[in-house]
Amino acid sequence: MEKLHSAEQLSSYRNTIDNLDAALIHILAERFRCTNKIGELKATYNLPEVDTNREEIQLSRLKTIAQDAGLDQTIVEKCMRLIISEVILRHSQMKN
Amino acid sequence: MEKLHSAEQLSSYRNTIDNLDAALIHILAERFRCTNKIGELKATYNLPEVDTNREEIQLSRLKTIAQDAGLDQTIVEKCMRLIISEVILRHSQMKN
Repeated sequence: MEKLHSAEQLSSYRNTIDNLDAALIHILAERFRCTNKIGELKATYNLPEVDTNREEIQLSRLKTIAQDAGLDQTIVEKCMRLIISEVILRHSQMKN
Repeated sequence: MEKLHSAEQLSSYRNTIDNLDAALIHILAERFRCTNKIGELKATYNLPEVDTNREEIQLSRLKTIAQDAGLDQTIVEKCMRLIISEVILRHSQMKN
């Protein structure tokens, strides 16, 4: 592959990534809309912010999906722990 | 809303989250497939792993998309920094 061709290839990959990232953001936006509603529900009924059992079941399921899709499970774990910690932070703010 | 109804509502929200998470994982899997190809290209042509200019343009664009979708920009920044750092780690491993 020539250097010029490699630059075109890199540009093409980056276009794919930009499209995938836009999809990621929209799904994340909908996910946080949903967890915000859960936060309101938990605040109303004074339910605990953290449900460790639910988290572990979620994570285990997502690792299986990741494995089937060829995605490194450590990435899934790091991303989901980050997202869940942001959700818990927002839920605790709703209670205060 | 009664307590029983709130439990049903919580369960319904969680079903939505499980579906969105499966979509997230599949998009992430495809994103890492694509960045792995970029890693091979960078290793072949000895291109730098980090492109700070590209990262900042990506992040700025995604923050705008997040704002339009009603998603907190700090969440986007944290998630994307995490994903990009995982990509850079894999690219540097490919070079060694």
